[in-house]
Amino acid sequence: MEGRVYLVGAGPGSPDLLTLRAVELLQQADVILYDQLVPVRLLDWANPQAERICVGDLPGKHADKAVLIHQRMVAAARQGRRVVRLKGGDPLIFGRGGEEIAALRAAGVPYEVVPGVTAALAAGAYLEIPLTHRHFASALAFVTGHEAPDKAEPPINWRALAQFPGTLAIYMGLCRLPQIVAALLEHGLSPDTPAAVISRVSWGTQRSVFARLAELDQ
Amino acid sequence: MEGRVYLVGAGPGSPDLLTLRAVELLQQADVILYDQLVPVRLLDWANPQAERICVGDLPGKHADKAVLIHQRMVAAARQGRRVVRLKGGDPLIFGRGGEEIAALRAAGVPYEVVPGVTAALAAGAYLEIPLTHRHFASALAFVTGHEAPDKAEPPINWRALAQFPGTLAIYMGLCRLPQIVAALLEHGLSPDTPAAVISRVSWGTQRSVFARLAELDQ
Repeated sequence: MEGRVYLVGAGPGSPDLLTLRAVELLQQADVILYDQLVPVRLLDWANPQAERICVGDLPGKHADKAVLIHQRMVAAARQGRRVVRLKGGDPLIFGRGGEEIAALRAAGVPYEVVPGVTAALAAGAYLEIPLTHRHFASALAFVTGHEAPDKAEPPINWRALAQFPGTLAIYMGLCRLPQIVAALLEHGLSPDTPAAVISRVSWGTQRSVFARLAELDQ
Repeated sequence: MEGRVYLVGAGPGSPDLLTLRAVELLQQADVILYDQLVPVRLLDWANPQAERICVGDLPGKHADKAVLIHQRMVAAARQGRRVVRLKGGDPLIFGRGGEEIAALRAAGVPYEVVPGVTAALAAGAYLEIPLTHRHFASALAFVTGHEAPDKAEPPINWRALAQFPGTLAIYMGLCRLPQIVAALLEHGLSPDTPAAVISRVSWGTQRSVFARLAELDQ
């Protein structure tokens, strides 16, 4: 049997926001490599015999782990096993999915990508924030608040984002919240812009704060 | 029994990209009001006894239908029925979900919003386009190619979008493709920008074209 890797979006965290395809693949998996931030209760859907590896438990620092994840996926698929690489949210939004695809292609391992509900969509639904609105917001941007220090292209252009004609959803921004708020205000976004900070959306431990942009870092 | 309305994201079209929560609600529904663009095979999951209404079949023109949809949802919920309002993709991304929430709030009808996989995520997964990439794209924007003619705020600022530091996903842009490409080029986006046009992603009838931006409208 030919092994295969499935890069699967786990959704925002609530088990009932998995897709049917994600559940089917978890049930059939021989190996599951899951992100540290994926709630373990999602694995209740998984094949009880599947080998389960939290990628946070792999040795080495964060940057080294990516290589180990690639090696594990490739090795298991070459043994003819069905590998689910379970990633928080959607695999191709702030999830290194592009790098994992490149590694699988380079190794000649067959793979499939399964999209998932990304966190901003869950934040919209759970906190009733219309992310777009025909009369008020014709666009929506997802931005990382946590850039790769070794990124080849220039750092995020906060000036362009302050002028973005729509809703901004900033991912992984909590640690850099004061800097992000300052950059947006400095480049002209109104201090009165309605804003919210949300963590662990759809988990039992969801927290949120609504405020004016200028008050958000207080 | 108290009626309730569920604004449910149907995902991009493939039945296995419904969430578990969406399937559960379809199975329990008394009434399903579904978008014209939702593939009817998604209703294979639904309660066979449920009343099914394609909102495209409601009388009147497009703008009038929104009011009729609100009235139908409210009336059915007040009769104590469980109403699923099934919307393509995610309810709050280019889906008038914000307006439907406002109508339900105004009527005092209880409701819940269930997020779904929006089309751009499926396009990323099915066509292997990393929507964000740690080294190349720290942001992703969803933009409508089809604005409300009566929108209160200014029309889309294509100049700001041409400077957007990341991937652009333009929804419902096929009819206005030549104008959109022209606007992006005029405001400085490189003619060599890699681009793709995708329709009905994840349906059996999916079509796609990859090209340089400057060649996309040919």
